[in-house]
Amino acid sequence: MKINRNYLNLKDSYLFATISKKVREYRAAYPERKVISLGIGDVTRPLPKVCVDAMQKASGEMGTMETFHGYGDYEGCDFMRNAIADYYAKKGVTLEDREIFISDGAKSDVGNFLDIFDTDNTVLVPDPVYPVYVDTNTMAGRKVLFLDGNQENNFLPMPDKSIKADIIYLCSPNNPTGSVYTRDQLKAWVDYANEMEAVILFDAAYEAFVRDSSLPTSILQIEGANTCAIEISSLSKTAGFTGTRCGYTVVPAGLVRDGQLLRDLWYRRQSTKYNGTPYIIQRGAEAVFSAEGYNQAMENIDYYMENAKLISKTLDELGIWYVGGENSPYIWLKCPNNLSSWEFFDLLLNRANVVGTPGSGFGKMGEGFFRLTAFGEREDIKIAMESLKALLK
Amino acid sequence: MKINRNYLNLKDSYLFATISKKVREYRAAYPERKVISLGIGDVTRPLPKVCVDAMQKASGEMGTMETFHGYGDYEGCDFMRNAIADYYAKKGVTLEDREIFISDGAKSDVGNFLDIFDTDNTVLVPDPVYPVYVDTNTMAGRKVLFLDGNQENNFLPMPDKSIKADIIYLCSPNNPTGSVYTRDQLKAWVDYANEMEAVILFDAAYEAFVRDSSLPTSILQIEGANTCAIEISSLSKTAGFTGTRCGYTVVPAGLVRDGQLLRDLWYRRQSTKYNGTPYIIQRGAEAVFSAEGYNQAMENIDYYMENAKLISKTLDELGIWYVGGENSPYIWLKCPNNLSSWEFFDLLLNRANVVGTPGSGFGKMGEGFFRLTAFGEREDIKIAMESLKALLK
Repeated sequence: MKINRNYLNLKDSYLFATISKKVREYRAAYPERKVISLGIGDVTRPLPKVCVDAMQKASGEMGTMETFHGYGDYEGCDFMRNAIADYYAKKGVTLEDREIFISDGAKSDVGNFLDIFDTDNTVLVPDPVYPVYVDTNTMAGRKVLFLDGNQENNFLPMPDKSIKADIIYLCSPNNPTGSVYTRDQLKAWVDYANEMEAVILFDAAYEAFVRDSSLPTSILQIEGANTCAIEISSLSKTAGFTGTRCGYTVVPAGLVRDGQLLRDLWYRRQSTKYNGTPYIIQRGAEAVFSAEGYNQAMENIDYYMENAKLISKTLDELGIWYVGGENSPYIWLKCPNNLSSWEFFDLLLNRANVVGTPGSGFGKMGEGFFRLTAFGEREDIKIAMESLKALLK
Repeated sequence: MKINRNYLNLKDSYLFATISKKVREYRAAYPERKVISLGIGDVTRPLPKVCVDAMQKASGEMGTMETFHGYGDYEGCDFMRNAIADYYAKKGVTLEDREIFISDGAKSDVGNFLDIFDTDNTVLVPDPVYPVYVDTNTMAGRKVLFLDGNQENNFLPMPDKSIKADIIYLCSPNNPTGSVYTRDQLKAWVDYANEMEAVILFDAAYEAFVRDSSLPTSILQIEGANTCAIEISSLSKTAGFTGTRCGYTVVPAGLVRDGQLLRDLWYRRQSTKYNGTPYIIQRGAEAVFSAEGYNQAMENIDYYMENAKLISKTLDELGIWYVGGENSPYIWLKCPNNLSSWEFFDLLLNRANVVGTPGSGFGKMGEGFFRLTAFGEREDIKIAMESLKALLK
């Protein structure tokens, strides 16, 4: 019996473990100080009430013979796929029913989608990057190339025709940087992918944070995307579903590679290795897309974005370079005084009692940068910003 | 961009599609006749009330800030893993916390677990077989060997030391045959696997149907299993969770292959490609293992097993050979008069208005056999059995 030895090539990430350890030690040393975390990528506000109501009703249905639901469709319930189709229609994107797959979250689909691709493909990911894009390909033994994000390109790297890539990851609004590609920039990526006969895996998990209506919220809004792009999204950040688990993936019906419809291959994958998203959860997710549900979800996002504004304003006052925070819950800043990411982490924790995430944990281009998140409570954000100002002014 | 061309080697299964088509056509031709299905593998009874209550309460928790749950642990909530540990303790199996992984169902884990194994392993599966075991390995390009189930071995094939295998699938109580390995038989498999340094993937999804206390309900009850076996199970059939989605996988802490702890590799896989089972669903699943929940679940199983008895009794009266039905919801019978599986299907549909599943759909050794299931309503089972008797007497 041989194990998949590609797993041995995975780099262990000590990022969040190291952060936890440092914070634990600091709290033990200074129990009287309040440490505020602007480091987490998890939501803090509760689910919209209509989602709760829908899930309670659906749970009740499971308790009587007449309304009980057994196995559902692998690709999700009709009502939920219709809700997604309607949501995309409002974005100006027409989807066919069979292009939509409901999942238990974007992370599962980001990882599992690779199953339908040969291991002998070259992968292109931006740096800094959400580690899952790299790790899932390392597990399959694929070659991974990096494209540098930096201050010059606002952490929005553009295609380089001298690089031949087969699988391209784009995340916009970006995790960890919070930067957002414009329509023109995404068009350049779509043209590059079509020319290379590559596939773009587009992670739209933060699309609901886009406030600037000139910015795209879906790559499928870009001409030509339906022959090169798969869009993977989630309700985790849109409506607080991080612990409730529901996402969706759109595979355009016209997307053919190597003579095969990717949509059919993905259906084959899901029907063989997945048994559908829980009925109860899909009912809760459907409610997000009702007028009332979406308003409630947007109220939470407005709350986070007000937090983001407080952070941005402070950084402006301090003259610190950053991207993000306008159409994303993430703010990606340059560490002041040319500190390294971990040096700034230590300074912030020890002198301002604020926790953030060292940029170097997201790739080599993240060194010297730092991520703050707008999830959390308003009063905490205010206190943290006052401490930051006192420290750096 | 190259697709995973192993997918092109998958055999399309037209089994259930063909059944649906034939039934649809029959119903259109004879709209006045009531067709009874004993072909489905899905439960029909509702969830235990305590599960519904628990999920309604958990849904409510998601609606307020104080009780909201964001990202959970990849391996499942502590309360749910404790419930599984307690359940195994009652089976005489002591599990450590870190050996238990909560999932969204056995099918996902059966498919995803292969991720940690090299593609250059030889797979051994019994024939007839649950098609997912074969398809998931075909997708990865693994070589699959079959071990014949037949009347002589009661469809419980035993290890053959002349065959070298790395990954072995066992399902007991078996789908599709309903046969159950004894402790001695499982011991022979465990010894064989340890000797070969193979890994057994043990599918225990039907363990709750075992009524004979001398039969094992877990391979981990067998000495030596903790160095060769992974157990994958589910609440789908135990408590009607087919549409609610919760399962669990046990990876013994002492299971090492190729110098690696499989438990650690599986944790790496799950933490990279899975974000945990919904909190609400885990609360419902926890309730199954309360005294009240388990009693309610067992009442449903008793109901199905009473159905199974009616079917067995009829087959006994008709002198038809079969296995299963005593400790399993499945009854696997030899088609009378040496009919082929599909010939018997047609006869049963056209002359008795009863639908079952042709055994040939589960592998070449299934030809000439037929699967009936005990899921369904008592009155329907009675009518179906009367029709069967009238047809075959």
